[in-house]
Amino acid sequence: MRPSGRAPDELRPLSFEPGFTKHAEGSVLATFGDTKVLVTASVETNLPPWLRGKGKGWVTGEYGMLPRSTHTRGNREAARGKQGGRTVEIQRLIGRALRACIDLEKLGERQIVLDCDVIQADGGTRTTSISGAWVALRLAVDGLIEAGHLEEDPITDQVAAVSCGVYEGTPVLDLDYPEDSTAGSDGNFVLTASGNIVEAQVSAEGETFDQEALLRLMRLAEIGCKEIFAAQLKATGR
Amino acid sequence: MRPSGRAPDELRPLSFEPGFTKHAEGSVLATFGDTKVLVTASVETNLPPWLRGKGKGWVTGEYGMLPRSTHTRGNREAARGKQGGRTVEIQRLIGRALRACIDLEKLGERQIVLDCDVIQADGGTRTTSISGAWVALRLAVDGLIEAGHLEEDPITDQVAAVSCGVYEGTPVLDLDYPEDSTAGSDGNFVLTASGNIVEAQVSAEGETFDQEALLRLMRLAEIGCKEIFAAQLKATGR
Amino acid sequence: MRPSGRAPDELRPLSFEPGFTKHAEGSVLATFGDTKVLVTASVETNLPPWLRGKGKGWVTGEYGMLPRSTHTRGNREAARGKQGGRTVEIQRLIGRALRACIDLEKLGERQIVLDCDVIQADGGTRTTSISGAWVALRLAVDGLIEAGHLEEDPITDQVAAVSCGVYEGTPVLDLDYPEDSTAGSDGNFVLTASGNIVEAQVSAEGETFDQEALLRLMRLAEIGCKEIFAAQLKATGR
Amino acid sequence: MRPSGRAPDELRPLSFEPGFTKHAEGSVLATFGDTKVLVTASVETNLPPWLRGKGKGWVTGEYGMLPRSTHTRGNREAARGKQGGRTVEIQRLIGRALRACIDLEKLGERQIVLDCDVIQADGGTRTTSISGAWVALRLAVDGLIEAGHLEEDPITDQVAAVSCGVYEGTPVLDLDYPEDSTAGSDGNFVLTASGNIVEAQVSAEGETFDQEALLRLMRLAEIGCKEIFAAQLKATGR
Amino acid sequence: MRPSGRAPDELRPLSFEPGFTKHAEGSVLATFGDTKVLVTASVETNLPPWLRGKGKGWVTGEYGMLPRSTHTRGNREAARGKQGGRTVEIQRLIGRALRACIDLEKLGERQIVLDCDVIQADGGTRTTSISGAWVALRLAVDGLIEAGHLEEDPITDQVAAVSCGVYEGTPVLDLDYPEDSTAGSDGNFVLTASGNIVEAQVSAEGETFDQEALLRLMRLAEIGCKEIFAAQLKATGR
Amino acid sequence: MRPSGRAPDELRPLSFEPGFTKHAEGSVLATFGDTKVLVTASVETNLPPWLRGKGKGWVTGEYGMLPRSTHTRGNREAARGKQGGRTVEIQRLIGRALRACIDLEKLGERQIVLDCDVIQADGGTRTTSISGAWVALRLAVDGLIEAGHLEEDPITDQVAAVSCGVYEGTPVLDLDYPEDSTAGSDGNFVLTASGNIVEAQVSAEGETFDQEALLRLMRLAEIGCKEIFAAQLKATGR
Repeated sequence: MRPSGRAPDELRPLSFEPGFTKHAEGSVLATFGDTKVLVTASVETNLPPWLRGKGKGWVTGEYGMLPRSTHTRGNREAARGKQGGRTVEIQRLIGRALRACIDLEKLGERQIVLDCDVIQADGGTRTTSISGAWVALRLAVDGLIEAGHLEEDPITDQVAAVSCGVYEGTPVLDLDYPEDSTAGSDGNFVLTASGNIVEAQVSAEGETFDQEALLRLMRLAEIGCKEIFAAQLKATGR
Repeated sequence: MRPSGRAPDELRPLSFEPGFTKHAEGSVLATFGDTKVLVTASVETNLPPWLRGKGKGWVTGEYGMLPRSTHTRGNREAARGKQGGRTVEIQRLIGRALRACIDLEKLGERQIVLDCDVIQADGGTRTTSISGAWVALRLAVDGLIEAGHLEEDPITDQVAAVSCGVYEGTPVLDLDYPEDSTAGSDGNFVLTASGNIVEAQVSAEGETFDQEALLRLMRLAEIGCKEIFAAQLKATGR
Repeated sequence: MRPSGRAPDELRPLSFEPGFTKHAEGSVLATFGDTKVLVTASVETNLPPWLRGKGKGWVTGEYGMLPRSTHTRGNREAARGKQGGRTVEIQRLIGRALRACIDLEKLGERQIVLDCDVIQADGGTRTTSISGAWVALRLAVDGLIEAGHLEEDPITDQVAAVSCGVYEGTPVLDLDYPEDSTAGSDGNFVLTASGNIVEAQVSAEGETFDQEALLRLMRLAEIGCKEIFAAQLKATGR
Repeated sequence: MRPSGRAPDELRPLSFEPGFTKHAEGSVLATFGDTKVLVTASVETNLPPWLRGKGKGWVTGEYGMLPRSTHTRGNREAARGKQGGRTVEIQRLIGRALRACIDLEKLGERQIVLDCDVIQADGGTRTTSISGAWVALRLAVDGLIEAGHLEEDPITDQVAAVSCGVYEGTPVLDLDYPEDSTAGSDGNFVLTASGNIVEAQVSAEGETFDQEALLRLMRLAEIGCKEIFAAQLKATGR
Repeated sequence: MRPSGRAPDELRPLSFEPGFTKHAEGSVLATFGDTKVLVTASVETNLPPWLRGKGKGWVTGEYGMLPRSTHTRGNREAARGKQGGRTVEIQRLIGRALRACIDLEKLGERQIVLDCDVIQADGGTRTTSISGAWVALRLAVDGLIEAGHLEEDPITDQVAAVSCGVYEGTPVLDLDYPEDSTAGSDGNFVLTASGNIVEAQVSAEGETFDQEALLRLMRLAEIGCKEIFAAQLKATGR
Repeated sequence: MRPSGRAPDELRPLSFEPGFTKHAEGSVLATFGDTKVLVTASVETNLPPWLRGKGKGWVTGEYGMLPRSTHTRGNREAARGKQGGRTVEIQRLIGRALRACIDLEKLGERQIVLDCDVIQADGGTRTTSISGAWVALRLAVDGLIEAGHLEEDPITDQVAAVSCGVYEGTPVLDLDYPEDSTAGSDGNFVLTASGNIVEAQVSAEGETFDQEALLRLMRLAEIGCKEIFAAQLKATGR
């Protein structure tokens, strides 16, 4: 039995609240159970130096946790003077995931920065960030199209992410904090609506696992992402 | 005429939404018009080294803006590797303001950290932070009392803050961004419900001002803080 | 009775020693009692990036304390790897204060950096810095005019600063360290010779204060600044 | 055809040269083709603060590239003042991988730091680091046993890592730089000699991939790791 | 001919003004021509961790240049966030030089920090710092003896430093800035009053030099230090 | 008797292994006894800003120690976030030494970076770095000449370095770690094959020394460098 009483292949209640803040070109509050991440998409014309003049754009992600989004307060990374290893690892993943669903040449010479800030954490903040980031990106690109800045839609696919893991011997979908903190192994999957994989990553946290477990986690991720894809479409008015 | 159509002594619609996040001992979303600040109060038993063993506690503030809380995206301070001067100035002010309303000896050997994170900015983020911080502090202290950790209430007064400034020659209350960005001079006042001043600070931003202007801004602040005090009490169930 | 035996509205002996160092375009040793600050004005043609090509200049301040300018040695900020919050707060104030007395368009595309380095501290280092900075700025601008680099004088007013506070219940002018460290509330006022206010800032340090106290401190500041204005003029040969 | 002429399931020539440096408790030069990584294992009795007094030890990894280990010189991370995101990501992976093969309680209250420094890079530096780190760890633990510091062998399994990817449509084993820089997707697998998975991670770099591709990469990794396990044993005299 | 008209073996006018600031246990303004360095000696009971409980003390140096001590303004190291290589090199030299003249066991478990801050630079700031540091150290130790904190004088010798170099083919003593900036080679010598060498360092700056030149510079240094030793004694009332 | 049994004027066995790594324009493993330093020379067309457009090039050095190159593991400087004072001091020396043997105008607008990374330390890492750096520089410049990028050879002389010191009262050549850690005074000499001095630096480490000792160390350095010059020529095929 899962602590929450959910079935092994059951997501937490999820929602995407578009337009949560007003300044960003795209903005959404992504919620998976008690995990809440504010994602904004900012369109900038100022490309990083190494990309200038190449006729293409860039999509990148940044990630942060508010100091008291967690059970005990974490130090503010800005005050400590650097981002921790986990933060850096996650924001690299967010960028890779979202660049997999966009044609950077069609985007033109502009950069879209996806800021994922965790308001409240209860497991799965990186996958919630990615799933929300697709919504924010979609909204920002819709705005560029409506404003006539883009003739062709550069978004080529839909991307969502979910965590899975082996909890007390059973592979389960969408781990919350009580599960995540004791899981024997857990992973994060980034999938496309067209049925492909962008990133599959599973780590042993206490006990190693075998190929069959890997495949069962993979299948759970497919189940979960289908539901997320539907919610993303609804939130972006499709 | 103010851009918003408000009267010179009229606050923006304001609200304090207590319990906005679940982990912190005190938590509130403070809203003044389009300015939204999430304030959490974290109770820690780990005092800063210079205060240990002195039989008293500490209250401190930290402040941050989400990168896209503003019209154009600001760099993430954690990524730049340091907090900017404005951030540091504001968090020092938050700490001073809240320490003025609490008896640190009665608080005992614990620290309360008030994290003020700006979700959306439209002028007055530092005063919204302070006014919200009182609510979060009150809630956290209420929890300590209920849990039997404190016998006597250490909070000695109520503290609120508001900005005022001279906009197109007229002293006005609670500047929003369009006013703030063009005001000839502006200031921030931190007042107590008992009628005293904790901090009065007015700066010329383009043109100097005289004593009469200073007094009129002071009086506007008193009008504004009365309304804020009432909303704070309501949010904390008093 | 004040520890120094001064009357409540009496400044410490003050002096401005122009030309204290030889390389800077303007240089002065500003002394208020035992507080000694070396201020240099450096004229640079290299504007900060965000100001280039706009046909106007900039005036900015930097502030530092020598490690043993104080009773006990403070760590060298360069060795710690960052400037503390107090330092940052003070240098922002210095910049704002001096920009209030100069027409940046008349200054032309050049920057004047006012470095205020505390040689010996005994209270009031930030106000001594501002009062001295006006002298250094005046000397540097005089040099630009004499050299034919400026046709019109960009300095529009005279600026001085002084601290005031409530010491043992009595509002007093120009706090020295023994007063400053025990004052119930204290403030800093930046005034112009033409009778206006550039910055008024009063903080409760232990006990809150009321409007009447604020006004009395304001009036003390006016008394003190008159004397400072005269000394500034004398030091710059006017 | 692979640029090197290798078969799809063929590793590069590999070697582990134990005792490459003399001070470390364990030291090995791990070579996969032109990729050369010096790994040292340092045994320290000084545990990180959060682990002290818990009756168990810790194994951690650090990673660095010499500035000119690559085709064009990279900036020295020590000179830039921080480790890049890729470095941090890799050293977290190294630590996780090696902790999966050791019983930290049997290790006792000591820390083993695995320093992986890339002398020359030609693809696969992180997997070469992990495979070499097992050798260095094994040698260091052997030393502890020989010296009588450990009664029971804390190493519970053998760990190796290899990269695989889809190069021009074909899944291939152990990518070298020319393959790595153009692969459509690539991944890193950390496996145990007992047949389990410690970490499986595959990313789309240009084109997404499907489950079948994931499984084929997984199988290639198994083939590769068998050969690596044998070489590790030989290098450690087993 | 030297730009200053001095003879090759002639020092600039030099002075040590003891008690230049009031808080430090030892304080002196050391002047060599237009080079002015404020040196303070701070006695601390808080030893660096690696020296605690060993029954001996420590002497260390720190060095800084005020931003406008030089012809053109240098960036403030505290603002840049780190000390430059030259600064670090110089403060290591200052520490080594002064530790050569004191018995650290007789000093007891206390640290003396010698802060050397350059008020005005005109060549030779590091040697002026060292020569002044001996005065400040002597004054601080005298104070410890007078206060009864030390029974035996831990200072074992007198230390002074001077620069020498080959200017337009001629070895000269005590280079000023015009000489220093064009010298073919220059060096710094730290000597003891008892006739020994603490540090001898000569670098080619544009042309290499031979042994004979090295010896002539050495002899000039001996001449110069004799005069400095006398001035140091006079400043410390011996 | 020296711990190694060497005669006072006897170098350790030394070798220069050119081409140790394949990417750099020049690469050598320099070995003095158990001290091993990998030096690479990287030719870059991107000059530091202050040198651009002046028709000349630059040669600079960087230095690092692998964390476990020493008896006990040192913290990784990249992880600590800054290079230590000793590192900075050494890399400044490396740059100065190598610039003494090259005509920067003949080098043209390119920079050569000499990275000296200590693989194993047993005393004399800075002098081994300099001696090796000449080999790497020579190889890189030879490559530029062969490729037709340089018409004239910019290298004007040969440079080598060696340490000397007073060990148990006897001046000895090329100190190894057991000698270095107990020497009364020690120094580093950088000499040219044409018989001149680039840098002479001797420090008292425990006891001061006299002029005669300085001269004897100097003479030992000359003996040692002759052997090094020969080995350098051989390694570069001359």
